Amino acid sequence: KVDGERLWDSLMQMARIGPGVAGGNNRQTLTDADAEGRALFRRWAEEAGMTMGLDRMGSMFMRHEGAEPDLDPVYIGSHLDTQPTGGKFDGVLGVLSGLEVIRSIRDMGIRTRRPVVVVNWTNEEGTRFAPAMLASGVFAGVLTEDYANSRTDAEGRRFGDELDRIGWRGDEPPGGRRMHAMFEYHIEQGPILEAENKQIGVVTHGQGLWWLQVTLTGKEAHTGSTPMSMRVNAGLGMARVIEAVHRIAMDHQPDAVGAVGQADVWPNSRNVIPGRAVFTVDFRSPDLAKLNAMRARLEEEAPRIAAGLGLGIAIEPVGHFDPVAFDPGLVEVVRGAAERLGYSHMNIVSGAGHDACWISRVAPTVMIMCPCVDGLSHNEAEEISPEWASAGADVLLHAVLDAAEV
Amino acid sequence: KVDGERLWDSLMQMARIGPGVAGGNNRQTLTDADAEGRALFRRWAEEAGMTMGLDRMGSMFMRHEGAEPDLDPVYIGSHLDTQPTGGKFDGVLGVLSGLEVIRSIRDMGIRTRRPVVVVNWTNEEGTRFAPAMLASGVFAGVLTEDYANSRTDAEGRRFGDELDRIGWRGDEPPGGRRMHAMFEYHIEQGPILEAENKQIGVVTHGQGLWWLQVTLTGKEAHTGSTPMSMRVNAGLGMARVIEAVHRIAMDHQPDAVGAVGQADVWPNSRNVIPGRAVFTVDFRSPDLAKLNAMRARLEEEAPRIAAGLGLGIAIEPVGHFDPVAFDPGLVEVVRGAAERLGYSHMNIVSGAGHDACWISRVAPTVMIMCPCVDGLSHNEAEEISPEWASAGADVLLHAVLDAAEV
Ligand SMILES: NC(=O)NCCC(=O)O
Ligand SMILES: NC(=O)NCCC(=O)O
Repeated sequence: KVDGERLWDSLMQMARIGPGVAGGNNRQTLTDADAEGRALFRRWAEEAGMTMGLDRMGSMFMRHEGAEPDLDPVYIGSHLDTQPTGGKFDGVLGVLSGLEVIRSIRDMGIRTRRPVVVVNWTNEEGTRFAPAMLASGVFAGVLTEDYANSRTDAEGRRFGDELDRIGWRGDEPPGGRRMHAMFEYHIEQGPILEAENKQIGVVTHGQGLWWLQVTLTGKEAHTGSTPMSMRVNAGLGMARVIEAVHRIAMDHQPDAVGAVGQADVWPNSRNVIPGRAVFTVDFRSPDLAKLNAMRARLEEEAPRIAAGLGLGIAIEPVGHFDPVAFDPGLVEVVRGAAERLGYSHMNIVSGAGHDACWISRVAPTVMIMCPCVDGLSHNEAEEISPEWASAGADVLLHAVLDAAEV
Repeated sequence: KVDGERLWDSLMQMARIGPGVAGGNNRQTLTDADAEGRALFRRWAEEAGMTMGLDRMGSMFMRHEGAEPDLDPVYIGSHLDTQPTGGKFDGVLGVLSGLEVIRSIRDMGIRTRRPVVVVNWTNEEGTRFAPAMLASGVFAGVLTEDYANSRTDAEGRRFGDELDRIGWRGDEPPGGRRMHAMFEYHIEQGPILEAENKQIGVVTHGQGLWWLQVTLTGKEAHTGSTPMSMRVNAGLGMARVIEAVHRIAMDHQPDAVGAVGQADVWPNSRNVIPGRAVFTVDFRSPDLAKLNAMRARLEEEAPRIAAGLGLGIAIEPVGHFDPVAFDPGLVEVVRGAAERLGYSHMNIVSGAGHDACWISRVAPTVMIMCPCVDGLSHNEAEEISPEWASAGADVLLHAVLDAAEV
């Protein structure tokens, strides 16, 4: 078993970097806080005998040598970046549990045949720069480096420029690393494991996603002196599309969700009819047909709503992945580890996107989940217990030892 | 008649200060650009022989002495501040036409019995600091100085601090100036005069307004892994209230308008269910009963919408004035001036709020309007012709000479 106390202590130390306003974290990607978090992780990993590789997307590959260095390594990866009002565990648990696995096997004097590499993938959250899972997407060859570098945040700053600014761009071309297996351990971010009273989620599949950025164009005009009949109100159009997104998701129950999380109107003045609205629709389903049907219905309904109000409309996909099936052999490895350790477990589908979803396209990949209180995530109040954290890390340790061959 | 070319030239010079992004202006109240616009107006006014009074709200009173200095002065006032994406004429036309009236009577060697005071009222627009017409509201005794000083902008900066920062706080207590009459000349900001092909709007009434700031409180959660049934989505609630505002306004046709111009969700991240939404409803009507009925209906419907989604709700009025009837005697003075000058004219109700609406509570007050292209205002594309501008200024000149007694 891992040292659960040491793992928890590391989690709490990392949480001091980029504190939030309500007990969580704001350590968004490529901020100064992100740089500080990276430096701490690097120091800890080097203290545990690991050496760093850094690719041109800023993804950190901390390698612990195996007895046979030429064998394909086993990877453990997740992310240290957070939401603007994020929790202390989303992503961080996976990276620091990877570190704890290495610390533990060194304590135990275990030598793996294969090298083990613990990865911090850049920009998993996708809030500052859409899409989510950006660096793992480039690694997997689904997104190009140029596309990634050109993504801009709300202030118009480019991903590439910000990566240079914080000093974490490496030389290594992204992708092309041979991987024997990749494990990602993550909090569930949903309510199922807690409700079912299980310690471990054996993740067999992941939901697919569409992020559709909608831009409605109306006409800025005075809220007082413009007759109702002359208004071209982009804010009203946005309201109707938000309602349509909800209705579409409800019509595809079960196994479908939809919402608008990001929404801006211009010029955002109390006495100006919004002349422009920009917002992002988030649709998800584990069922590819449903996922695409929801997108298709929005692409039919939203233009009709816009036309009814005289608005211009553009719909641009800014994030996408199909539903994922994880590697059946590795799923059995995880289940076997949970069994051996005597932890209660169940199969589960990941509701969120994860770096593992992209990596599964280029290497055998699987995920392990632990419960979180009230299923709450993307909220500073996100919470897990130290026992939950270490149970999953124990499963990770056993699964990695199995794959890395002792 | 006034010197229309000089008036237009002054308008274009002022428009160079705080340029917008699309040909208009962003000279929001208490910004550095506002300070620069004030300094230019002061210089011009002093060059025209006027002396400045400055009150504790930053309102500028440029006085041109009369033959009988002890008589109550005639006032001409409007505002130099703009919307964030505002036009070059909204407010500015009234202040600079006041200046042009003084320049013209000096050119003509006319001496009025009464002093004439041209006023630039602080924070008419109300975008940066709600409510609109803040300084004239304090002058009229409807709002307190403390209330005004404590208003904050989106970044949390206080009105009072920003007024000190730009260096335009005076010593004079706001209010208490005796006024024989007050004239405000303004662009219509609506489509009626242009559609009716009239040069002059004789403003008999002004619409009343309610600004209601709505805060909905839900629960931040992950857009992917949170089941539909567990969501408490403040953004969806906002969408429903925006639709309700539209329906309420449509149900009170004619003579009623309603919209939401300012809308923000938190944390405004693509993959977070909004945990909070804050937005401002703008209802207007020339009919007091309708105005209050719209507010009452929103206060009944919005909490029902919130309850249906499990959201908390707070509704706070952040701006209000009842419909206004301008001084019947001064209305006749304006109509008489337009007649004498041979300008086509019609009675009109102001759709927007104006400083004149507040001043009408403490002094005989009236407004003059000129058309604007397509009725467009609160838009950088706001446009008027030099001929329209000078026709209204001619009417202002004659009406002021009438009231100030030559
Ligand atoms: N795990 C996680 O929250 N990832 C962010 C990408 C997503 O929205 O699913
Ligand atoms: N005239 C004008 O646009 N004033 C701003 C206050 C309002 O919204 O009516």
